Order: sequence, then structure tokens, then C-alpha cells
Amino acid sequence: MANPLPAGSPSLLRRLNSAAVLRAIRSEGPISRTELAKVTGLSKPTVNEVVELLLEAGYVSESVADGEGRPRRPGPRARLLTFKADLGYVLGIDIGANKLLVLLADLNGSVVASERRRTSARERRSADAMLEGVQDAARRVLEAGGVLRERLQAVGVGTPGVVDPLSGRVTLAPQLGGWEGIELGPRLESAFPCPVLVDNEVHLSVLAERWRGAAQGIDDAFYVQIGVGIGGGILIGGDVYRGASGAAGEIGYLPLFAAEEPAGPLEGLGPFEQAAGGSAFARLGRRAAARPDGAKLLELAGGDPEGIDAELVFAAAADGDRAAREILDELLERLARGIASAVVVLNPSTVIVGGGISRAGASLLEPLEWRIRELVPVAPRVVLSALGDEAVALGALQLAVQAVEERLFELAVAESA
Amino acid sequence: MANPLPAGSPSLLRRLNSAAVLRAIRSEGPISRTELAKVTGLSKPTVNEVVELLLEAGYVSESVADGEGRPRRPGPRARLLTFKADLGYVLGIDIGANKLLVLLADLNGSVVASERRRTSARERRSADAMLEGVQDAARRVLEAGGVLRERLQAVGVGTPGVVDPLSGRVTLAPQLGGWEGIELGPRLESAFPCPVLVDNEVHLSVLAERWRGAAQGIDDAFYVQIGVGIGGGILIGGDVYRGASGAAGEIGYLPLFAAEEPAGPLEGLGPFEQAAGGSAFARLGRRAAARPDGAKLLELAGGDPEGIDAELVFAAAADGDRAAREILDELLERLARGIASAVVVLNPSTVIVGGGISRAGASLLEPLEWRIRELVPVAPRVVLSALGDEAVALGALQLAVQAVEERLFELAVAESA
Repeated sequence: MANPLPAGSPSLLRRLNSAAVLRAIRSEGPISRTELAKVTGLSKPTVNEVVELLLEAGYVSESVADGEGRPRRPGPRARLLTFKADLGYVLGIDIGANKLLVLLADLNGSVVASERRRTSARERRSADAMLEGVQDAARRVLEAGGVLRERLQAVGVGTPGVVDPLSGRVTLAPQLGGWEGIELGPRLESAFPCPVLVDNEVHLSVLAERWRGAAQGIDDAFYVQIGVGIGGGILIGGDVYRGASGAAGEIGYLPLFAAEEPAGPLEGLGPFEQAAGGSAFARLGRRAAARPDGAKLLELAGGDPEGIDAELVFAAAADGDRAAREILDELLERLARGIASAVVVLNPSTVIVGGGISRAGASLLEPLEWRIRELVPVAPRVVLSALGDEAVALGALQLAVQAVEERLFELAVAESA
Repeated sequence: MANPLPAGSPSLLRRLNSAAVLRAIRSEGPISRTELAKVTGLSKPTVNEVVELLLEAGYVSESVADGEGRPRRPGPRARLLTFKADLGYVLGIDIGANKLLVLLADLNGSVVASERRRTSARERRSADAMLEGVQDAARRVLEAGGVLRERLQAVGVGTPGVVDPLSGRVTLAPQLGGWEGIELGPRLESAFPCPVLVDNEVHLSVLAERWRGAAQGIDDAFYVQIGVGIGGGILIGGDVYRGASGAAGEIGYLPLFAAEEPAGPLEGLGPFEQAAGGSAFARLGRRAAARPDGAKLLELAGGDPEGIDAELVFAAAADGDRAAREILDELLERLARGIASAVVVLNPSTVIVGGGISRAGASLLEPLEWRIRELVPVAPRVVLSALGDEAVALGALQLAVQAVEERLFELAVAESA
């Protein structure tokens, strides 16, 4: 049952043609115009028109085949087209509560330099300090890559919180002080000589998984990031789905377990992440440490209950500690119910689990998958994130690469107007 | 932030062109070729090519402008194109647990005859009997419309359960006996001289709301059908989203309130619909009727607790009965939590409430919207279904109309091969 087609318009058709030609040069190049017409199914005049635009804009170069790499094409003028990935550069920036990661890549998204550091307490408190930190990190990564700032063609940025897709405004981001309501897109745009695209960190994670991670070739997936907060990223038809106002996948707010935690709401966390995220591991661990059967947990934490976190609970459970095992069982059940809720709504083929808690690996994944399958009518595969804590920055890179592509397609449309 | 474009292919482009031309003739016709080129932005040769195919296939007629309706176009040969909506017909069939509704419409989806009746106990028990009933109803509606069976061009069918989008196989449909696992598409295809498209009833409801109801012009919506079962239909980017295997929106299975109802699972119902659907109104109502404060409920039910249903609970609550009011408050809270779960995942701009329980109107809608808004980070509008219990059959009609359109576009592609 095919979906109804959108109405065709000349500019849409031109964009589609440009996209087809550019992608074929990227993935198949060096390639001749004749081959391009074959690969894309477009007419030679159409291919030529698009190629001329790309040559003019400098994104593609044409040279006589030299027999290297590929067999030399027949004919006297076998000229081959190559995408000039180093014509410009893009940045992918992950602004997290704990870390700042900036990747510098060419227009194919191949990383040429990166800069990673923990955020300072000052940056976590003050938006101005954080923005200064971001610019400083960008400066360093450009230096490390030997790339002039002027050559940046797009910057992608991932942030916690809900990002308005149109304005680049951030809301619901309690993890960072002064971040609530910040016009992140416009604020950063003044610092770079190119467009700045801002998106929610989990949306970018699933974009990255689709590009280079566990969702390659998968059209309908749900990415769940389990850390102190819990968030979701949705892939529909191979694209990130952001919802009507950028808040799709905010499953930390699932109205689950509200009554089970009589201790008032934690600052800024939704009911589900409060009950099942990293802070719940710590909270239940500390509670257990105050009881005789929590002695092992307390001991592992060096006698300080404040030192108990999710990692420690997993370690103690793996060690056979019963109190830790019980905490783990309870939290796995809660996590399974929350993730199952998203699965019931979306019916994804695949669930990808990422975020800090996912470092527990199989001891998290296997019982989680088992329980989710029991709870839902049609069971998905459940896999671990393939990108770990680089997912957000890679997704931001991909966002920037896409923005450069879109500009090229727009060029083709503008030319024809 | 635009999504990346799909790669353009000649056949896709031809389909887009055909779609644009056909839709323009439908919505703007009678219309001249010159105007068509203007409206669609396509070149005259492209318009002519598509128009010739449509004329040849008989879906469009061309005649000299007669000055009626529209001002006569200038020029000696102002020939106008009209979509021949009566060239063929489509059926939209709603196979429900309680009713069978068949709509007969022309190719614009304008209904020319309908046939509605309650399903018999035998039909609800036996798939063979139900299929006979469907064929009988189809026969009657064709007779009523004076349309020969041979003129049917597509049949759309809505059914409870999860429908595999490829095979037309139905699973998870406990409401109908023998329905589980039925190859509904193939089974009905032998009875009609045309393709039969089968889809889940709630998916079709949201398709219908988008077409002619509360979701017109709305791209991202969530439709929730509240009856004995509870199901959801998802609109993303203006299209129905069915999930990886047709089970998207099956929110009856949300793992909510599992512990609150110690009375074992109800046959075939998921945890959420069990706790908050029509059967919960009846169950809680009967429980109350056994207590002194439930006297009013029992009285309204004519002394028989088995006669208590959702409608009666709403009526008693509206009358000021305290026991009914408490049941209603409890169930509104449950409904709000389940719907809020879907809203948190999807971030729709609009929630459309339909199904039997929605007949309660504002007394359901207002408190529901109020509570949902409290539970979610970004609040949607909450509105009532505009189509009532015709939604499924209308969605089935639209599915059939789309199938006819798709065939026309395929025609254009085949011609060019």
C-alpha cells in the first residue's frame, strides 16, 4: 500500500535530480557523465545541467581518467567527475551536561580532528560561559585540523532539551543552568561564518546511528538514551521524526510510576526518568546501603552512600550481591515498561539502547529485551548503540553535511528560476 | 531544517508529474491545458503527455468550454479537461465487531449509496459467516446505487486487529471469532473484480479524519479510539504511519495499571484498554452497584448490574451521582495517562478522540484535555472526531480512491518504459 505522492513541482523535481546526481558522484565517483546518466536514470541533458552547476560551484571536479583505481573508460574523452569533499568543512558539536565534544570533518563527514573535554562547573551554571567554551573548543579543533574558520560551510549542534525546529530555541533543558529559553541557533550563528543547525541530542544520536551506527539500512527504529535523564529518538521512513514542535521522543516525561516514588519530584526530571534513570539507581542504592543487606553496596562505595551510582549497582549485582540484584530487577522492569510504551506506540523494527547506563552492555540488554518482548504485541529487535558517546557529535556532523547538500540542491533550483 | 531528499528517479518524477496533473484536474477542473501548466508549474509538453495518457485511459474528458459555471476562456480552441469521477466506483467497508458498514462512492469519493447493519452473533463467531455477510452487503449497496460490480475499481476494508501491510493478513483481533490469522486481503480479492486493500480500523479512521474530518490540513496528529478496546492512529507528515509491521498505535497494549486490576486479564484486551476502556466502565460500575452508594447506578440499570455500561455511568455522573462521578474521575485519569503516553512519544499538534466513549462529548473531552495538558511537556489540542462511526468506512473509501490514483500514476510510468 503505497502512500499518496506529494504533488510534483518543477523546483522539487530539480532538487530531486540534483540530489540524485550529487549522491551518485559521491558514492560512485570518479564517474563519467555517461555512467551518471545510467546510474541515476536521468537524461543526459539533465545530468549535464546539474553537473555544470556543481562544477561551477566548485563542489565537483572533472579530469581525464588516469587509469588509477578504476579501469580507464573507453573513448577519447573519458572525463571523470569527483566530489571535492575538502572544498569545505563542517563542525559537529555535542554540548552535554558533562562533556563538550567537537568534531571537524570534510564534506563527506570524514573526521579530521576532534576536541573533547569535561564541562566546567561554571559552564554548567552559565549559558554565557558555556557558549564561550563552545567557541574556544571550535577554535582549538580548527587549529588542530589546520583548517581556516572561513572554510566552515555548516555547523551542527546537539543539546539537551526540546529544540524548536524553526527558531533554534531551547526549552526544557534543566541539566544546564541558564539554558532554558536560550536562542541557541542565533547565538552561535554570530560566531561562525556559516549556518548553524541546532537539534536535540537524542534526535542527533538516532540520526548518527542511521548514518554510521546500529540503524544503518533500518527505516523504523527507536533510540533510547538512558543516563540521568531518559530520552528517545525516532526514525520513521529513514528520517528523524521530531514531532509537531521538536518534542517527539521525550519519554522521560512518560506518566509512569508516579505514585511509586513518594519522595517529591526531582528537579527538572520527568516521572519516567526520575523512576528509572541514573538517579533512581543511585537513590535505591543509597536506600539499600542504609539497611543491613546493603552492606556490600556500601563497602564498594568506600563507605560513602553518596558514591553509589548505576555502575556500582551493576558491578555489585554481577558479583552476586542480592540487594543490588533486587535494585537491578526493579529498575529493569521500570525501564522495560517505559521503552515498551514507546514500542507499543511506534512499532519500530529495532530498538537501539544508548547513553551512560548502556555501558552495562549485555547485563542490561538481555533482560531488557526479554521483558520488552513480553510486554508488547509485536516484538522489536533490541540492540546496543554502535556509537557510544560520540553519537550526538556525529549526528551533528551529519546534520551539517545535510545542510551543505541542501544548499547545493537549492542552488540548482535558483539557477532554473 | 529540511529532511534529506530521496534520490530522484525518472519513474518517481513521472509519478510526481502525473499526480500533480491529475490532482489539478480534479480540484480545479474543468481546466485548460494552459492553465494546468500554470497551476502545476510543469512544462506544456509534460502536461500534454500526462493528459493524453489520462484521456486514453478514460479518466479525463476534454470538451469545448460552454461558458457554464466558469467564464469562457479566450481563444478559438479553449478546450477544458474534466475528471470523470463516474468512470468507476469504489467501496469502503467497515467490518466491526458490532456493525458492518459499506459505502459505495465514485472516484472522487462522493458517496452514492450505503448499507449499514448490526453484525449477527454468527458473524462475530465465524469468519466464513462474516465474509459472506460482507459480500452480501456489497451486493446490496451496488444494487442500491445502481452500479454494476464490474465497475468497481478498488475496495478498501477496515478491520480490528493488526494488518500486515504486505500480505493483508490479520493478527491480534480477538473481537471477532476465527479472525485471528485470516488472510483477509486475498480472501476478499476473489470476491471482487479489483484490488482489495485491507487496513486496521483505527489507521483508517485517522486517514478519514485527515481527508474529511478533524485533521484536515493537520500533518501530525494522534487519533485515539475509545470503545471496549482502545487503539490509536498516527498521522506523520500528513500520512498514516503504520509502523514496521502494521502495529503502530496499538496503545491498548500500553503496559499501564497492570497491578491495579487484580481480576485476571480480560480475554484479548491489552492492559491499558482493560483498565480504561468500555469494559472498565462496566466493571467499576457493577462493583459500585453492589455497594450502598451505587444505588443510583443500579436503579438506572433497571436493577440489573449487567446493564451498567459507560453511557450509563456518564449519565449518572451528569446527574450528580457521587459513585458514578468517582468512577468517571478514575477512568478519566487512566485515559489521560494512556493518551499522554502516546503524546509524549509523538508530540502531535492535535489529539482526536473518537470511538463509542467519545459520544459523551464535552463531559469527556474537557477534563481529558485538561489532564493531558498537565501530564505532557508540550500540550496538544484535543478535539472530538468529526466523523463519528463512519470514520472507518470513509477511511476505507479513501484508501480505495488512493489505490485508483496510484494505478493511474503507474500507468504513466509504464507508458514511458
